[in-house]
Amino acid sequence: MVIKKINGGITAAQGYRAAGLSCGIKKSKNKDLAIVYSESPATSAAVFTTNHFKAAPVLLSIDKIKNKTIRAILINSGNANACTGEKGMKDAIKLVSLTAEKLNVNQNEVHISSTGIIGELLPMYKLENGIDKLVPLLSKSGNSDAAEAIMTTDKVSKQIAYSFELPSDGTKIKIGGMAKGSGMIHPNMATMLGFITTDLSIKKELLQKALKAVVDLSFNKISVDGDQSTNDSVFLMANAKAGNNQIVKEDDDYYAFFEVLQRLTVYLAKSIVYDGEGATRFITIQVNNAGTIEEADLISRKIANSNLVKTACFGGDPNWGRIVAALGSCDIEFDKNKVTVSINNRKLFNKGVPINIKKEDLMGLMESKEILIEVNLLKGNEKVEFWTSDLSYDYVKINAEYHT
Amino acid sequence: MVIKKINGGITAAQGYRAAGLSCGIKKSKNKDLAIVYSESPATSAAVFTTNHFKAAPVLLSIDKIKNKTIRAILINSGNANACTGEKGMKDAIKLVSLTAEKLNVNQNEVHISSTGIIGELLPMYKLENGIDKLVPLLSKSGNSDAAEAIMTTDKVSKQIAYSFELPSDGTKIKIGGMAKGSGMIHPNMATMLGFITTDLSIKKELLQKALKAVVDLSFNKISVDGDQSTNDSVFLMANAKAGNNQIVKEDDDYYAFFEVLQRLTVYLAKSIVYDGEGATRFITIQVNNAGTIEEADLISRKIANSNLVKTACFGGDPNWGRIVAALGSCDIEFDKNKVTVSINNRKLFNKGVPINIKKEDLMGLMESKEILIEVNLLKGNEKVEFWTSDLSYDYVKINAEYHT
Repeated sequence: MVIKKINGGITAAQGYRAAGLSCGIKKSKNKDLAIVYSESPATSAAVFTTNHFKAAPVLLSIDKIKNKTIRAILINSGNANACTGEKGMKDAIKLVSLTAEKLNVNQNEVHISSTGIIGELLPMYKLENGIDKLVPLLSKSGNSDAAEAIMTTDKVSKQIAYSFELPSDGTKIKIGGMAKGSGMIHPNMATMLGFITTDLSIKKELLQKALKAVVDLSFNKISVDGDQSTNDSVFLMANAKAGNNQIVKEDDDYYAFFEVLQRLTVYLAKSIVYDGEGATRFITIQVNNAGTIEEADLISRKIANSNLVKTACFGGDPNWGRIVAALGSCDIEFDKNKVTVSINNRKLFNKGVPINIKKEDLMGLMESKEILIEVNLLKGNEKVEFWTSDLSYDYVKINAEYHT
Repeated sequence: MVIKKINGGITAAQGYRAAGLSCGIKKSKNKDLAIVYSESPATSAAVFTTNHFKAAPVLLSIDKIKNKTIRAILINSGNANACTGEKGMKDAIKLVSLTAEKLNVNQNEVHISSTGIIGELLPMYKLENGIDKLVPLLSKSGNSDAAEAIMTTDKVSKQIAYSFELPSDGTKIKIGGMAKGSGMIHPNMATMLGFITTDLSIKKELLQKALKAVVDLSFNKISVDGDQSTNDSVFLMANAKAGNNQIVKEDDDYYAFFEVLQRLTVYLAKSIVYDGEGATRFITIQVNNAGTIEEADLISRKIANSNLVKTACFGGDPNWGRIVAALGSCDIEFDKNKVTVSINNRKLFNKGVPINIKKEDLMGLMESKEILIEVNLLKGNEKVEFWTSDLSYDYVKINAEYHT
């Protein structure tokens, strides 16, 4: 199948408009309010954080997503509206009502998504004024403003779009997305937001199934610092504007869509890691020949979240001992004498014993911007790929100075 | 009971001698070889790392500790003799033999313990020469040299000793210990070594039971960076020189000993955190009114190992939202509306909602060297205290530059 990269991000697919502006939540005056809008009701799917302290907008969306269709999502950065009690929930509901009114759509079809500082009430006056100005800005070219307005400590905005043809009848489908990430990124989707739009026609159950599956293979396979958030959400809208025969079962069309959706979410997930707080290197961890997906997943997370491994990567130091120690600390059965560890395709630990390489010969091995760490258990046939960033001075700086 | 702090560390108790010197493992020429020796056979107990990749000296000791008594422990820093295969094991055995020969004791009663870089073979020539010089140095005043020689990235050596009287007959008992820690410190005793000596007479089974229990309350309640090591070990020797009636059951004498042993191990554990790599603050995490010890433990670890919490502490930023987010990410049932979080005795989050405090009023709240984070679940009666350090620029520096 030919998958074509196209411009337009979240508004690339037919029938979508977006906008973004600064309403004053952020002191920096950077954009902090965005909206994504579908000209007709779109089938909706979403995946949310598993954190106990789900933010008000997340709790609201978990309820609303049960509705079959969606028209718009309002997104603000700078304030997460998390741990804000009843007032926070009232605020979220009020902003949704206001947006629905402005758009002249049913408020059941409008969602709100927030990211930023935890535990502070939303500056409602600023948001209300912001919505007034934002809705008239909705346009086919608003994608970049929206992608910018959802950023927190992100350094660059993240958007992508693809087109492809359905195998059954060649209908051209477009799909676009945007995301924000940076700190607190963790397997269970911490403090990351993702928004995806497509003009495909597909049954709600299948849309949800596909989204859940690709999120597990993308946003749930990244980590910047191992923390989880109160606000993580990924939304997917499908408004059927492409005019294809609705996908109602897991046929070739479904798998074609799934493939593109996976490529899109993996692209966005990797973009989040590239832009991880203070990240200087992009680290891929491959756990191969594990007994089960679950154990491969556990091992890859353990290595990815090891501060010792992450600082070694920052220092460009091929300290495979730290990788082995992280692996060894996993509560999983495996044969130590079968374990192999490679860094950037260079085998350093072979079937349980180190390979004798002079230090000089390892110089430069990890000086690359991208680092590949491979662990082979020689146990079964399952594998997992996981992406993370290094731990740098700037990570500490950004996170020590974020709040006050 | 009166517990008196005394001098002498590992040689404070009757019948113990120690020594430490530089044998050249460390390029720095700092001391790197130590020995602890009991003039008569001592009852032995030990607790070891749970890492799959146990270093050769650990594997050897797990086997040897089954012997009833122990006479000496040789300890080297600078090289962990971990992931070194059969050769590593042969080397460990050879050094034990050599030490036993020099001391004229049975080699079954000699242990070896190593810490430092993983995956490199021991420089045997240096160690063999070192042992030749080390054994003649054994003395009652060798405790400080030994405590220094076991250090890796530690900035200060860690030793302590106490005396107390047994409740049954007033026999004076002495107990001393030393430890090394710094990076890779984690609940499951990662890359920390501890050595404790006492002149108490006690049954081996009770000695082991007491050690296991206090390690859970001390060395297993600390974390610097959440990583686990291949070499962690805590040894306890009891040579009966005090002449008390042997403790053979869990009577008052046993509990008196237990109390002092716990005080000693908690002191050493906290010393390790104070000296954590790059640590600028000492953080105590108290989880109160949890349903079970296990869940209190899990929550305290999750908060202690959150890089976002640790960097906030470094920045002196009372960002309780990160504490709540870490708590919320634990897979434990609790009522969100009962959760209270305090920092340095100031309540910031009360029964599920933030307390409205002006930012100015929070300035300075976390500028103290010691930070107390309290989480109350209002669920049950169990509590856990856990100790960790902040995450600073220096942590990154030390760990990015440790190896090459």
